[in-house]
Amino acid sequence: MSVFFNLISVDDAIGLMKKIAPPMESEVVPLMDACDRVLSGDVVSDIDIPGFDRSWKDGYAVVASDSVSATDAQPTMLTIKGRIQMGSGERLSMKSGEAIYIPTGGQMPLGADAVIMIEHSEEVRDRVLIKRPASVGENVILKNEDFSRGKVVFRGGRRLSPQDIGVLAAVGATSVCVRGKPRVGIISTGIEIVSVDTVPAIGQVRNVNTYLCGAYVQKHGGIAVDYGIVRDDVEAMKNLLCEAASECDLVLISGGSSKDKNDVTAVAMEDVGEIFAHGIALAPGKPTVIGRIGTTPVIGIPGHPAAVVMVLNVVIRHLFAVMVGHSSALAQSRKAVLFENIPSEKGREEYVRIHLNKDGMAVPLFGKSGLLNTIAESDGVIKIPAGCEGLEEGEIVEVMLW
Amino acid sequence: MSVFFNLISVDDAIGLMKKIAPPMESEVVPLMDACDRVLSGDVVSDIDIPGFDRSWKDGYAVVASDSVSATDAQPTMLTIKGRIQMGSGERLSMKSGEAIYIPTGGQMPLGADAVIMIEHSEEVRDRVLIKRPASVGENVILKNEDFSRGKVVFRGGRRLSPQDIGVLAAVGATSVCVRGKPRVGIISTGIEIVSVDTVPAIGQVRNVNTYLCGAYVQKHGGIAVDYGIVRDDVEAMKNLLCEAASECDLVLISGGSSKDKNDVTAVAMEDVGEIFAHGIALAPGKPTVIGRIGTTPVIGIPGHPAAVVMVLNVVIRHLFAVMVGHSSALAQSRKAVLFENIPSEKGREEYVRIHLNKDGMAVPLFGKSGLLNTIAESDGVIKIPAGCEGLEEGEIVEVMLW
Repeated sequence: MSVFFNLISVDDAIGLMKKIAPPMESEVVPLMDACDRVLSGDVVSDIDIPGFDRSWKDGYAVVASDSVSATDAQPTMLTIKGRIQMGSGERLSMKSGEAIYIPTGGQMPLGADAVIMIEHSEEVRDRVLIKRPASVGENVILKNEDFSRGKVVFRGGRRLSPQDIGVLAAVGATSVCVRGKPRVGIISTGIEIVSVDTVPAIGQVRNVNTYLCGAYVQKHGGIAVDYGIVRDDVEAMKNLLCEAASECDLVLISGGSSKDKNDVTAVAMEDVGEIFAHGIALAPGKPTVIGRIGTTPVIGIPGHPAAVVMVLNVVIRHLFAVMVGHSSALAQSRKAVLFENIPSEKGREEYVRIHLNKDGMAVPLFGKSGLLNTIAESDGVIKIPAGCEGLEEGEIVEVMLW
Repeated sequence: MSVFFNLISVDDAIGLMKKIAPPMESEVVPLMDACDRVLSGDVVSDIDIPGFDRSWKDGYAVVASDSVSATDAQPTMLTIKGRIQMGSGERLSMKSGEAIYIPTGGQMPLGADAVIMIEHSEEVRDRVLIKRPASVGENVILKNEDFSRGKVVFRGGRRLSPQDIGVLAAVGATSVCVRGKPRVGIISTGIEIVSVDTVPAIGQVRNVNTYLCGAYVQKHGGIAVDYGIVRDDVEAMKNLLCEAASECDLVLISGGSSKDKNDVTAVAMEDVGEIFAHGIALAPGKPTVIGRIGTTPVIGIPGHPAAVVMVLNVVIRHLFAVMVGHSSALAQSRKAVLFENIPSEKGREEYVRIHLNKDGMAVPLFGKSGLLNTIAESDGVIKIPAGCEGLEEGEIVEVMLW
């Protein structure tokens, strides 16, 4: 293993992510637990919805042609033939000159073809004054108009919103098949790393990355499994890597991936698995190692939290998207107006961290990227393409949100 | 109780929500479970970060003034005085003419004031060639520069991102005080409602709303508690309402809130609690009842799922925001270009549901709002202010996302 490495482009790193990502198996979950999960197959309706012609307003079922000349000044008078009871299977019938009171959701009587809203009517003993004309079908939802029995309601790959959960309840899906949640093993390495409940001595830092990676994994629908801290010891790293790779769907290692001779990540990965790339043209985040043990992807990320945030969001999100079966869930972006010029001297692709200010403008964060407080302040990142000589204040930019 | 009701404006309904919302008590959660939770108080750092002057790059600690004339063609040669070991508390020292190898995160030697990146150096036996000048402080993070011991890191009211969780790990917050998750009781009412595992007979519909409300509550950080279906029975509703109000922080009832004589929600609410408003100038969603039992807000929403989606997102989200202590978490919006004209004849405030198409344009959904499939298709809603005569194709609109 060379101490120095060859850089691959961010696009190539993303391509590699998509190639090595193992899609999650399906699992069945109760409908009430399925919000934000991704359907693993199509769902069909078990019934017609509605199962009968129903009113969409409280009012009077009428024959539309009876109402053509109805106005406030000259209402049409109809005889009230009856009242629809909610939930009753009985179907009333009526004819021209008659009206039947119908609540929202009630079954349309035979003979009626429209509903006049109660606001446009006035009941007078056993008659009703109709004050607006109705067109055929007005305020009525026809049997079958919404969903048909046996027809697909949602396609596999859809991420379920609360509204979708409501629709699935309507079609009788008490449980649904969704992609499993990826188990993501998290290892932190570095001889200087101490646990969060320890006060670090001079030269030491707390284990920020296990928490940062764990929260990211949870936020994006995975299960974080903490494998603790490995000192700079290749054998310990190899053992832990094998354990984590066999128990998880993905392993993230933070630290130990750079060119320093004591960095053990790449050495251990090469020994117990395979390495596909070492180095991405991304700053911060350059000395990233991408590999696999068996079928489990293993990503070694440089140890600085700023690099971890960048690599997780710019690269690893694509791996996650394939695993959970949904692309847009993990790539939310927002157009914003650039607050100030971004010079780009180098002519090569760059990623610049952005803070969205209270006016929604994109403020580039130029300060020291090594500071934690710029990490907490940043809301996302913009890409400056290769060959671009920078961006100007006032330009519309696409901010990939963290 | 009048069968008819007076409408209040959406703004008044939102004001009422903010007034009756009980802020949640604090609870302590482990840091790893705190992502997306809202801090209930300020967090201060227990240490200086960094606790020592550290390098932010792999490279050589130097005296900046030694490097002023260094170039690729005419590098400056310095004597390697030693190598910094990660995690070592020992502080090396050096002087002009010397350099010390330092890895990212290593403690700066006494006497050095900058770090030359390894890419801009070349080691030759016990010497190193420096090929770029460094300014004082370059690639160095000073003790204290990030956070100071005893100083506030995050203010109460902040919703924690994965990056924030990382920062909290750095400042030793192994657990954090956050706002509790609201327990939200959900009651579905209507004589026509049957459970989701039942095939509805003619005139019946499945209990969509318990799932829709439950998923909404979960998505927005609450705990959904299902109190089942109440038939149109005032006594049963009163008993269940009292039970739910005593066990929960908020109760949502769907159905039974309209003007139909069999609708029991308002009658039961008035008997066991108080009603502040009955009717909102919002379509669909007009016959909403807003009240309270003891200190627990109770909202009766009309039974059609389209109304439930509208009332939850336009009105109840504000109540939720006060309860969980964070406003922007629940009011995400996005600017979009309007795909086609929206006529507004009425001159009064209107809410129009929007689908964001694949180009990100806002397509108004004009179809029957009673259809479930338009609910699943909609991504949010836009507000057309009172007095506005409609919106034109190509205008920029603000879409409140579901």
